[in-house]
Amino acid sequence: MIVNGFKYSAVSAGIRKKDRLDLGLIYCDKPAIAAAVFTTSRVKAAPVLLDMERVRQGKAQALLVNSGVANACTGEIGMQAALTCSGLIAAALNIDENLVQIASTGVIGEQLPVEKIADAVDDLVGNLSSDNYDHVARAIMTTDTVPKTAERVCSIAGCDVKLFGIAKGAGMIMPDMATMLGFVMTDADIAADILQHHLSLAVKLSFNRITVDGDTSTNDTVLALASCEASNPEIDALDTGDSRIFAAALADLLKDLALQIVADGEGATKLVTIKVVNAQSEKDAEQAARTIANSSLVKTAFFGEDANWGRIIAALGRSGVEFDQNSVDIAFDDVVLVRDGLALGAAAETRATEVLKQKTFSVTVDLKTGQAGSEIYTCDLSVDYIKINADYRS
Amino acid sequence: MIVNGFKYSAVSAGIRKKDRLDLGLIYCDKPAIAAAVFTTSRVKAAPVLLDMERVRQGKAQALLVNSGVANACTGEIGMQAALTCSGLIAAALNIDENLVQIASTGVIGEQLPVEKIADAVDDLVGNLSSDNYDHVARAIMTTDTVPKTAERVCSIAGCDVKLFGIAKGAGMIMPDMATMLGFVMTDADIAADILQHHLSLAVKLSFNRITVDGDTSTNDTVLALASCEASNPEIDALDTGDSRIFAAALADLLKDLALQIVADGEGATKLVTIKVVNAQSEKDAEQAARTIANSSLVKTAFFGEDANWGRIIAALGRSGVEFDQNSVDIAFDDVVLVRDGLALGAAAETRATEVLKQKTFSVTVDLKTGQAGSEIYTCDLSVDYIKINADYRS
Repeated sequence: MIVNGFKYSAVSAGIRKKDRLDLGLIYCDKPAIAAAVFTTSRVKAAPVLLDMERVRQGKAQALLVNSGVANACTGEIGMQAALTCSGLIAAALNIDENLVQIASTGVIGEQLPVEKIADAVDDLVGNLSSDNYDHVARAIMTTDTVPKTAERVCSIAGCDVKLFGIAKGAGMIMPDMATMLGFVMTDADIAADILQHHLSLAVKLSFNRITVDGDTSTNDTVLALASCEASNPEIDALDTGDSRIFAAALADLLKDLALQIVADGEGATKLVTIKVVNAQSEKDAEQAARTIANSSLVKTAFFGEDANWGRIIAALGRSGVEFDQNSVDIAFDDVVLVRDGLALGAAAETRATEVLKQKTFSVTVDLKTGQAGSEIYTCDLSVDYIKINADYRS
Repeated sequence: MIVNGFKYSAVSAGIRKKDRLDLGLIYCDKPAIAAAVFTTSRVKAAPVLLDMERVRQGKAQALLVNSGVANACTGEIGMQAALTCSGLIAAALNIDENLVQIASTGVIGEQLPVEKIADAVDDLVGNLSSDNYDHVARAIMTTDTVPKTAERVCSIAGCDVKLFGIAKGAGMIMPDMATMLGFVMTDADIAADILQHHLSLAVKLSFNRITVDGDTSTNDTVLALASCEASNPEIDALDTGDSRIFAAALADLLKDLALQIVADGEGATKLVTIKVVNAQSEKDAEQAARTIANSSLVKTAFFGEDANWGRIIAALGRSGVEFDQNSVDIAFDDVVLVRDGLALGAAAETRATEVLKQKTFSVTVDLKTGQAGSEIYTCDLSVDYIKINADYRS
């Protein structure tokens, strides 16, 4: 979707492999309002360290992103490489270098091939167009099998406000975002601190609710840029109707992207929502849901289309959450398979097995210890996950 | 190894499949001193609940163990089944029912076929022999590919004291023991509280240091029985030389069994020791080692024989342990691959890749934040793990 103020471009710079888009640029006609959320890992890639510093000003005008090399664990050389690339792009665009954000994804521990990027900068800038919005989604793919984009339009004080998002991520996906990049371009007129608040909350409810393999990466970045060209009255407070409309659209967009990531989880054949209901607290519910969603045994049973609720209750048992094992109910979609800790028998299991044959289904665990609930989105663990990851670097 | 006082027996009761040993009995000529450690899961199988209560008296004379059905999540019927079986065995052996321990392993949520077990009791008791010590090791196998036994002899005050151990476990193995059964028979003369102390510590350093897939089960039990027939002076204190000799032999025995479990991890082709050294505290070291040892991405790289240290440092980054990413060293066996957070280059990587081709190797992570260290034992994550677990129940 074309969003007023933004142009996009992507080229094949040969960073890791030839003849595939691996370098992307997003550019705003003028400095955009910017907000971002980064990996919580103690090990942060050079571009993350650079962006964290720069985004504090609440503005950015360009984003340079590459796949192939993560520029993580690359020390001072890696930081210099990030700075060099941002300088080259700033010069070519004739903008302040501090308005350039950088993102990288790919193999950890290898240095960024700065010359290849330098050679590509002119083409990259030359190809900028508002029509090229899906090119960057392709350039940031690593083990992703499909590009991921989403769009929303919301109406704020009679103005159509557009949001366009792109994301990548397929493995090393857990809470706290993991090898996950997400970029949102909007024409909303919005204050930086409000955008940051809405973005942080939306990330918490979307990208931080998905898990492919429990791993978190060094490079996770979600960046939101607002060109402020939609002519809506500036959103400058949290609790107004306009602000809530925008926040809802942003959260919905990010959840859409997050679910695309899980559905494209490395080797995944199923998209599964783990719902824990009637827990003592939301924290309990989330912890229980996350433990189930990350269990290799549970995820392998999903792959095998086996309604093996014993693995679900075993994961629940080690989750650290308090409950009575003789009170738990478990359902696959609307098929209750376990009532008060006991299996309901062969007929229920047959129906549950039918649910598991679907590509998308939910597992609901009723703890009966309170009124709180939470959801985590996960996928199955397949033979292909192993194959993909056993030789990712080769 | 024959241990004075103990007899063993195993039969095929057809609990889940025909023509395989699935019911075992260990019997001591007189009530043995007993100590045990059980699963920390909130969901505990019926036999675990029963044993926990009974073992408090510090004595046991018989252990009845079955594979095929875990008798977990089976409610009141499951508890009655465990009681019925223990009653049948007590009657056949003519001993006090409270001296019978029960253990089960297998599928969660199915009821124990009590009649099949009842039909097998006479054969089981009739076959008891001190020579049959490895039969029970076969009867408790589920996805295990090999039976697991170990033996030690230590000299206490001039007496040879024997320890014979059997164990099972291949998946659902994490800290806190998981679907893991371990039984130790010794002829040591030892007080119950001292045996319990040494057993708890030895379990902490062995079975609780291994991980196959991060999952913990409902049935984990480690039971130690002492026939007191070795004629050694009774070990009745913790801090004597005799006590330390026995404790060391017990710990060594359990570590042997624990490593056999990891080496036989479902689908495993590699046995890997993750060592974290120079950490601020032992807790930090263990937490870091455990996070690395449980990472699906790290374990898949081991399977692929890929010296992908980026995944190791990424796991370290999300472990919650404090360190400086520019100070970390990583070595595979004695090949240092990363120094101060940076890769040492192609030659080191080639040598590290050679290390990974071995069936057994270690990964050492030097945090340089203190003097503490810890080790966790893990295996790789292979295509066969998925295949085994995708259709375990069928």
